[in-house]
Amino acid sequence: MGILMVQLISIFISLIAFAFAAWLFLWVKRQPSDNARIAQVGELIRQGARTFLRKEYAVLARFAAVAGALILILLPSPIWKGDIFHNITMCIAYFAGTIFSAIAGKIGIEVATIANVKSAEAAKQGIKPSFMAGFRGGAVMGMAVVGSSLLGVVLVYLLTGDATSILGFSFGASSLALFAKAGGGIFTKTADISADLTGKVELGIPEDDPRNPAVIADNVGDNVGDVAGMGADLFDSNVASMAAALVMSTALDKAVGGDRYTVMVFCYAALGLLASIIGVMAARIGKNGNPTGALNSSTYVTTAVYMVLTAIATAIWGLEWRIWGACIVGLLVGVIIGIATDYFTDDRKKPVQFVAHASKSGPAFTILSGISYGFLSVLPAMIGIGISALVAYKLCEPINPAYAGEFAMFGISMAAVGMLSIVGMIVSNDAYGPIVDNARGLAEMGNLGDDVLEITDELDSAGNTVKAVTKGFAIAAAGLTVIALLGAFRSEVNEVAAALGIAGLEGFDVMNPLVFFGMLVGAAIPVVFSAMLMLGVDRNAQRMVAEIHRQFNEIVGLRDGKVDPEYDKCIDIATTGAIKELIPAGLMAIVATLLVGFIGGVEAIGGFLTGNIVSGLVFAMFMSNAGGLWDNSKKYVEAGNEGGKGSDAHKAAVVGDTVGDPFKDTAGPSINTQITVVSLVASLASTLFLTLSIF
Amino acid sequence: MGILMVQLISIFISLIAFAFAAWLFLWVKRQPSDNARIAQVGELIRQGARTFLRKEYAVLARFAAVAGALILILLPSPIWKGDIFHNITMCIAYFAGTIFSAIAGKIGIEVATIANVKSAEAAKQGIKPSFMAGFRGGAVMGMAVVGSSLLGVVLVYLLTGDATSILGFSFGASSLALFAKAGGGIFTKTADISADLTGKVELGIPEDDPRNPAVIADNVGDNVGDVAGMGADLFDSNVASMAAALVMSTALDKAVGGDRYTVMVFCYAALGLLASIIGVMAARIGKNGNPTGALNSSTYVTTAVYMVLTAIATAIWGLEWRIWGACIVGLLVGVIIGIATDYFTDDRKKPVQFVAHASKSGPAFTILSGISYGFLSVLPAMIGIGISALVAYKLCEPINPAYAGEFAMFGISMAAVGMLSIVGMIVSNDAYGPIVDNARGLAEMGNLGDDVLEITDELDSAGNTVKAVTKGFAIAAAGLTVIALLGAFRSEVNEVAAALGIAGLEGFDVMNPLVFFGMLVGAAIPVVFSAMLMLGVDRNAQRMVAEIHRQFNEIVGLRDGKVDPEYDKCIDIATTGAIKELIPAGLMAIVATLLVGFIGGVEAIGGFLTGNIVSGLVFAMFMSNAGGLWDNSKKYVEAGNEGGKGSDAHKAAVVGDTVGDPFKDTAGPSINTQITVVSLVASLASTLFLTLSIF
Repeated sequence: MGILMVQLISIFISLIAFAFAAWLFLWVKRQPSDNARIAQVGELIRQGARTFLRKEYAVLARFAAVAGALILILLPSPIWKGDIFHNITMCIAYFAGTIFSAIAGKIGIEVATIANVKSAEAAKQGIKPSFMAGFRGGAVMGMAVVGSSLLGVVLVYLLTGDATSILGFSFGASSLALFAKAGGGIFTKTADISADLTGKVELGIPEDDPRNPAVIADNVGDNVGDVAGMGADLFDSNVASMAAALVMSTALDKAVGGDRYTVMVFCYAALGLLASIIGVMAARIGKNGNPTGALNSSTYVTTAVYMVLTAIATAIWGLEWRIWGACIVGLLVGVIIGIATDYFTDDRKKPVQFVAHASKSGPAFTILSGISYGFLSVLPAMIGIGISALVAYKLCEPINPAYAGEFAMFGISMAAVGMLSIVGMIVSNDAYGPIVDNARGLAEMGNLGDDVLEITDELDSAGNTVKAVTKGFAIAAAGLTVIALLGAFRSEVNEVAAALGIAGLEGFDVMNPLVFFGMLVGAAIPVVFSAMLMLGVDRNAQRMVAEIHRQFNEIVGLRDGKVDPEYDKCIDIATTGAIKELIPAGLMAIVATLLVGFIGGVEAIGGFLTGNIVSGLVFAMFMSNAGGLWDNSKKYVEAGNEGGKGSDAHKAAVVGDTVGDPFKDTAGPSINTQITVVSLVASLASTLFLTLSIF
Repeated sequence: MGILMVQLISIFISLIAFAFAAWLFLWVKRQPSDNARIAQVGELIRQGARTFLRKEYAVLARFAAVAGALILILLPSPIWKGDIFHNITMCIAYFAGTIFSAIAGKIGIEVATIANVKSAEAAKQGIKPSFMAGFRGGAVMGMAVVGSSLLGVVLVYLLTGDATSILGFSFGASSLALFAKAGGGIFTKTADISADLTGKVELGIPEDDPRNPAVIADNVGDNVGDVAGMGADLFDSNVASMAAALVMSTALDKAVGGDRYTVMVFCYAALGLLASIIGVMAARIGKNGNPTGALNSSTYVTTAVYMVLTAIATAIWGLEWRIWGACIVGLLVGVIIGIATDYFTDDRKKPVQFVAHASKSGPAFTILSGISYGFLSVLPAMIGIGISALVAYKLCEPINPAYAGEFAMFGISMAAVGMLSIVGMIVSNDAYGPIVDNARGLAEMGNLGDDVLEITDELDSAGNTVKAVTKGFAIAAAGLTVIALLGAFRSEVNEVAAALGIAGLEGFDVMNPLVFFGMLVGAAIPVVFSAMLMLGVDRNAQRMVAEIHRQFNEIVGLRDGKVDPEYDKCIDIATTGAIKELIPAGLMAIVATLLVGFIGGVEAIGGFLTGNIVSGLVFAMFMSNAGGLWDNSKKYVEAGNEGGKGSDAHKAAVVGDTVGDPFKDTAGPSINTQITVVSLVASLASTLFLTLSIF
């Protein structure tokens, strides 16, 4: 099969995904809804989410304009030295990356803020229609993310014929993801913490009580953080994995002749999307079925379909079985890491129950035991990522002895592509969470009664469980992707070095002090980045709490529920604050990369990326899992264990949950994006570092 | 100057240190004390500490017997293959390492448990005599640690003439440090948390109230954790830095001829001890003086004296100025890191005050802001260690172009020696802390009145401030030492490889998947290790709380203070539990090293050590600093800020302090030792990994 053919097929499958997304969207929209209160609140949420996206995209546009100008002047090589045409395509690819990702995010938000209403109202008919509305709403986002990421990569490659430009596209996606994930994460936790602190703690009113001015912002936050943010994050990882694989496949194709390896990248990526479509279609829940089972089984269906499809394609077109093996290893390890993550966050397992029990001794023990289990949860993922990289490497090394090292690194990048092949399914499951969470809130605000609330609670709980798994998966995928990006960085450096006639890089030797220096600094970056985001949430929550106090003091009748609060003020604070707080953190990571690169050159950057990946993975896993664990411990206590609601154990568990919120929804998953952004900045600026560094 | 001469001088200076320690000991013992109640409680503390040491050393002896037998059979190479004489000396050196360190610990405990009584009683005469009793008591430990570490290294080298045996000595010191630091850390926090939880929280009685059955265990804990534990930790780092430097200096001397570089190692190490003696003698506090100032100024005196002495020695004996430079860079960076650490834990600076203020919003915010600042505190240390390694490397690389890489790594090891040169002063300051902390408790239990308590409080607070600095210093020193050990590991591997006629190692390339695999696993180890220790504290504290409840329920008259509680039961629980909980954590780290080595060989181990160092440094810094920060935030609130004692902010700050306790006194500083142990295991087993690994 030729390269053009596989590209056309990829475009075709992307279009199928869009068509499927459109059908799902219309299906969701067709579902009945008639409750005026729900419609009104739903509209407030939708408007709030749109406001956030608009403001965020406006700031991003300015950031992208500056970054685009810098790219135009400097990347891949300064225009006074290199080929200006190359800089222009790079710049366009960059913008395309931001725009494609932004469109996917916009689609996701639009459908999620309809699906939440539909899911709430459908719960009156039972669990099945309510689940389907939530799941299909999430699937629209899943299809949009994967369809647009594949389409974008194929189009950029078709038009430029150049893998480096895809790094530009990927960087565009990453910049957006940084804003969407970190900004959305700050937004959602600002609102969540403020709502809980004033509502549940100070006033003793229930979660989702409409008198609370932060309640709409809280619901908006679920959408912008988990739908748009997580979507952008996985869009980013998916594109980055393809970009890394293409940089290496084109170099290999050039070296050995033909286009076989580039064909494989597109082929396996396109089949992943096809498998996800089939998986989404297969999702079914019995009339009184189990939503967690339905979500998980569709993931397993996707995995199995993908393995079969790629095996058939490999056999028919005579592709390289070793690379297929690397791809499958990545996929399986991803699924296993997801399951291991589940162990630490599932309330039927020891960790959650242990932390709930420890809460009886007070909040300090909730925190200590949660942190301890969060620490332990790091091990399986680190071993899993390490083993998948090792196996993929060793599997692909013998393909061609003349290029053993290159094929080996290509194997790792294909393991990342394999792990991300089911990303359509993952995003669908992930977006399902905030939709049914919103639905729960809407059902409460619309007074749909206890029976309905019971159904929405069950759907919400399934969303929480699955979310922990998808987060573990997302972090592992980002980890493997950035290891592949490290290989792409070396490829880029060597290509540039060859063109300049200077010595290239064999690798990054830890015993080289520049590498070690870079590594120590790189390892500190995710930690500092997390701290800046968490302090940002803290500052922002203080502003919002002050606003809530003001409203309760100044608005007559609010306490008795006779007047609506000024929801939009809280949304404004969350939006403005989120954007204000995320910029320094994002800039810090980028500036640190540039500083290390200009001081220590490409070797220091190799170390920097390595340290950044390693410590980033540890902290991302720890924070996401500890956060999920505390959340579920609190729910476990609320379900009547260890004293139940209102007990001292419950109060302590709430403290754990509050600490865990920015861990799992702001800092933890944003580290993914930070790692990818830094890796791409390094790859793109490799020429500059090679020619202009001090050491 | 010849090698024998410098060794004899080193022995002479060690003996001066011992003589000085003996003089200080007798001085402390001569101080007046007459309060019967204090004498009685002081005796209980001394007996408790002795019990712990005895039990700990008994378990350690069994561990050492097994390790010694394994060394005899397997290290440096299996006896059926290598030179049995070499294995015997290695085994003896190993035992010597444990014994020298154990003796220093025993001396420290003996004097600390006398000095606490003397310091308490001297407070009746004013701050000056009380400070001097505490400081001179601590200095005995400082002199014992550094005197015995230098003496031990010199003797082993004199007798064996072999640097690899010093790695064995160092491994002995490390195994002891692992037990002393982690075991002592679990002991002290078990007692501290249980005492606070039952006493302050449940019963509302003051800290150090004699009715609390855990109060003596709490005071014993200060001694076994901070005096014996910290002393063993720095003994270990000091020996390891000399061992790494000697492995490389002997290789260099062999390569270029002569004994110049080995002479420099001994010369600079001996002068460090001399400078510390002068620094201790110079410590003075005015009649109403400032204890923090006195402690810090003696550190600066030591630093300045060391710089002058080494410069004179370098000039007189025509030593290599570049190596002197590396040494001084290490020292200065160590001092700077200490000062940066101080910023994050000083109650006059922003972080502590911010966290205290955040506590007004509840414990979740105490935790979140403390973790955030703990995260931020990682950056200066990582940059500092990175820069000192880089500068030392670049400074020493040009010494001999034929051995550029070897001299460069030797430079790093000498930077570590430089950083640790003032370790005598550091240990003195550190041991001062628990002595005056104990003195405060004794003054309270002996009813010495509020004026005396005010003095002991001031001395205690100075101890806390200085402790944060010394911890930052200790972690940085361990960091630089293990980087040097990585170089020593490569030297060992290459020496063995040359003997076996197989290919050696240039370095550890991150792009090698074995290295990367090792790195990912290595990075997870400090995290898992910390979790195991913290869960150990938790389990142990639960046992002790149950015992305290039993005593209050069963012992008639205890609540009214008519009967003494059974203090020894609590000491027993803390001792037995600490030993039981630390063994799995220590074994996990060692077994993981062996597994990775036998799976991936020396390359995977190179990665493993690197990942271990990098993530270990990040977590050690974070946990120590966050813990210190929470402790001082609580004290800041107790001093009347943000609502003062009894306010909601105070309750939240207490939660932070409780979380911080095992962070700063158990897990954080134990990571140091874990890193060193793992590095030494790797170096010692290098022959095995080189010949027996799977990949």
